[in-house]
Amino acid sequence: MAAYERILCAVDFSATSEEACKRAVELAQLYGAQLSLLHILEYFPEDRSNEFIAPECDDPAGYLESQARLGLNELAERANCEDAVRRVLFSPDSARREIVRFAAANNIDLIVLGSHGRHGIAVLLGSTANGVVVRADCDVLAVRANK
Amino acid sequence: MAAYERILCAVDFSATSEEACKRAVELAQLYGAQLSLLHILEYFPEDRSNEFIAPECDDPAGYLESQARLGLNELAERANCEDAVRRVLFSPDSARREIVRFAAANNIDLIVLGSHGRHGIAVLLGSTANGVVVRADCDVLAVRANK
Repeated sequence: MAAYERILCAVDFSATSEEACKRAVELAQLYGAQLSLLHILEYFPEDRSNEFIAPECDDPAGYLESQARLGLNELAERANCEDAVRRVLFSPDSARREIVRFAAANNIDLIVLGSHGRHGIAVLLGSTANGVVVRADCDVLAVRANK
Repeated sequence: MAAYERILCAVDFSATSEEACKRAVELAQLYGAQLSLLHILEYFPEDRSNEFIAPECDDPAGYLESQARLGLNELAERANCEDAVRRVLFSPDSARREIVRFAAANNIDLIVLGSHGRHGIAVLLGSTANGVVVRADCDVLAVRANK
């Protein structure tokens, strides 16, 4: 059985994904693996409220992307993994599918993600982690926060 | 974030759970964690065929349990983890619930299991791993075989 060489941490900037990132950093160090941080912008609603996009913004998609990049940079600094690859992608369908696609395209052998992300209502708890576990061709570590 | 101290590997004696066991052993060594191997006998059908239980067997439940214990011992030997705790439990409902209960009762901080176990038909692929990811209060590593 091969040691993990390429670890992907999928983050949604929740407290749970912050924990997942710390665990991914730890595992990348233990295995001497390359670490990638990925944030998926699941969709881009034209009517997204001004809470997220300033009304004077000419390029809302670009604004969201730059905010996500900034978020990844700050996360990498907090988690002490500033050498990690950082990617922000728009998804035409769902975060879980995009994570699985990215993992396959980049020969990821371990995906790490929080198992309670932003979709945290009742029956949907853990749905992104769950969807990734079902679909991924590689190992998946679902990290539970507030243990 | 605390290092993993108690790792549980849930096995169903499939090729996938063999891989999961090897990974669990590796992680237990990396973290210096205690490793437990758990096999759940999901139900005990009175009419189970003679393929599994000899017709002259007086105690079919005991027979299945001793076969499972033997399987765990052989697995521990192959995976080079003969110091691992080994448990066989009967479940009144489902393997996934019993795994989660065992993990909670034993302060497990990481569950490792194969993500394609015996329930390997179409839509149910990964169902035990999935159920554990949804229900567990700790981290869950779903190991994919045949990568």
